[in-house]
Amino acid sequence: MKKEELGFETIQLGHGSGGLMTRDLLDKIIFKSFSNPYLDQKHDGSIININGRIAISTDSFVVSPIFFKGGNIGELAVNGTVNDVAMCGAMPKYLSLAFIVEEGLKVEDFAAIVNSIKKAADESGVQIITGDTKVVERGKGDKIFINTTGFGEVNPKAKIASVHIQNGDKILLNGFVAQHGMAIMSQREGLEFESTIVSDTTNLNFLVNDLINEFGDKIHLFRDPTRGGVASVLSEISQDIHKGVVIYEDKIPLEKQVAAACEILGLDPLYVANEGVFMVIVDASICDDVLNFMKKDPKGKNAAYIGEITQEHPGKVVMKSAIGGKRIVSPLIGEQLPRIC
Amino acid sequence: MKKEELGFETIQLGHGSGGLMTRDLLDKIIFKSFSNPYLDQKHDGSIININGRIAISTDSFVVSPIFFKGGNIGELAVNGTVNDVAMCGAMPKYLSLAFIVEEGLKVEDFAAIVNSIKKAADESGVQIITGDTKVVERGKGDKIFINTTGFGEVNPKAKIASVHIQNGDKILLNGFVAQHGMAIMSQREGLEFESTIVSDTTNLNFLVNDLINEFGDKIHLFRDPTRGGVASVLSEISQDIHKGVVIYEDKIPLEKQVAAACEILGLDPLYVANEGVFMVIVDASICDDVLNFMKKDPKGKNAAYIGEITQEHPGKVVMKSAIGGKRIVSPLIGEQLPRIC
Repeated sequence: MKKEELGFETIQLGHGSGGLMTRDLLDKIIFKSFSNPYLDQKHDGSIININGRIAISTDSFVVSPIFFKGGNIGELAVNGTVNDVAMCGAMPKYLSLAFIVEEGLKVEDFAAIVNSIKKAADESGVQIITGDTKVVERGKGDKIFINTTGFGEVNPKAKIASVHIQNGDKILLNGFVAQHGMAIMSQREGLEFESTIVSDTTNLNFLVNDLINEFGDKIHLFRDPTRGGVASVLSEISQDIHKGVVIYEDKIPLEKQVAAACEILGLDPLYVANEGVFMVIVDASICDDVLNFMKKDPKGKNAAYIGEITQEHPGKVVMKSAIGGKRIVSPLIGEQLPRIC
Repeated sequence: MKKEELGFETIQLGHGSGGLMTRDLLDKIIFKSFSNPYLDQKHDGSIININGRIAISTDSFVVSPIFFKGGNIGELAVNGTVNDVAMCGAMPKYLSLAFIVEEGLKVEDFAAIVNSIKKAADESGVQIITGDTKVVERGKGDKIFINTTGFGEVNPKAKIASVHIQNGDKILLNGFVAQHGMAIMSQREGLEFESTIVSDTTNLNFLVNDLINEFGDKIHLFRDPTRGGVASVLSEISQDIHKGVVIYEDKIPLEKQVAAACEILGLDPLYVANEGVFMVIVDASICDDVLNFMKKDPKGKNAAYIGEITQEHPGKVVMKSAIGGKRIVSPLIGEQLPRIC
């Protein structure tokens, strides 16, 4: 989509009016990109047929910058919500899509974001079925914010809930931590490394679904450690279930470059946001099988067992270092990296 | 909720971190207000049981000012989405709720908005089942933006779609037009009238559902003329169905004070946003019955028949004046009143 074909160069207030300019923007970019029988009705809502247990999740994305190494706010908005639905043990099927655009956004940027949304939605197997576009005056927003709400069918084999977690359960991650946060952060700080750190934004729904199909109710919990990172998710879980968590420092999958970037910026990788990482807590009996299963999938090839649930120190997360030291991993308090997603 | 009990006066970036400050804000304000079995899971998503045809609609609300005569952005965010779901012929049941807050928003304002959301949700019979809170830096947003996505069960008796509209069908409105837009506008312009113009924001789902139960498939379409007003909705419909629309100027329900405000500001009430108004297009045979039925309901007491569908001038809306003049009602092009909802 070139600005010559579109007939306008920037998003203007009128594009949020609900009048002809809005329709023009929708027709030329949105409806053209996402055409499907639901959206093609062009109404305020959409009607779908659903039966059974449905997982629903919503997220607004305010990441800055909107284009970053490894992705942009558009695919993040799809993958983020797809993954939240997947963490419920469900296969995402539909997304709603709502934009809040700051007046003056280049229409080429908007179109590029929409293209990424389309691509990410196709890759995840979800359809955009309804949406909304608002425009705010220059200086009253920041380029573009995106809300997506996702709906998915819960896998009948899934029995995912923190109440099922038992002492001795094993904790695994599917891959390297802290990549998304450090990609954004090094870009903001203008840091150059030997190779570029790229965001890990990707969909996780297929691997998650395969795991459920393979291991059923022996999988007790999925969580994606986005804002607040692995440390915050583990802290929340240990408090929710009143059990302890032990993790092993040398088992946390961490890419060298990312570790270096964290050190330079004084950030603990355990608190840095991820977008393509999930944690799975499983019955101890299947730990090795889950690890091997994940390693065969491109999205799990760096999977690792990182720790376990314990009856000791309930409500607390303890990290053991390679040389036998112990420290408490406290939950994140305030903001480490604002607008990371 | 007083700021003394909360322990903080303004929303800070850390409240969007995903860490303890986020949890504190959620626990003290959000979870406390909306407690229900779905939300109480405190996870990223929620699982519900659904069977059948489900209507889904999403909207972001960016109205400015956030508090206005007759309401605030919170109840608008509930009623707006509730009504969009209702327009699909469905009874809304669940809402997701996502905030984008500008750093520095007074926590008392935030709490007041949450209270209004709770009240409006209760009145509409919907539950808040999942949500999200993001905070952006001062100057990168404007106090608060809210996205709601609503889910409702389609009434089995509903057969609502523009394809069912026929020549001769009658068009009715449930009440006075242009109230919401003029309430916002006169507040922005600092205009004083003899009495205050208040927003008409309200839920319409119960009256809509009663109409479907009473008149079934003889009701062909519901639409709520929000952004762009009655004129834009009628223009869209006439273009979609390739039929003409005739409306009668002296039949449009318009409150005197609102008419005066429109005149002072040079605005055509047909293009001004509504939040408690719906249009219903019905088989000619039931026009009087629908009118009488609506008039018995407090939300339809000023209902009026305003025009009809015609085979003449397909794709165009024509307004006839009291003295026999005719003019084409063209669709809104750009922005008349930015950030009206």
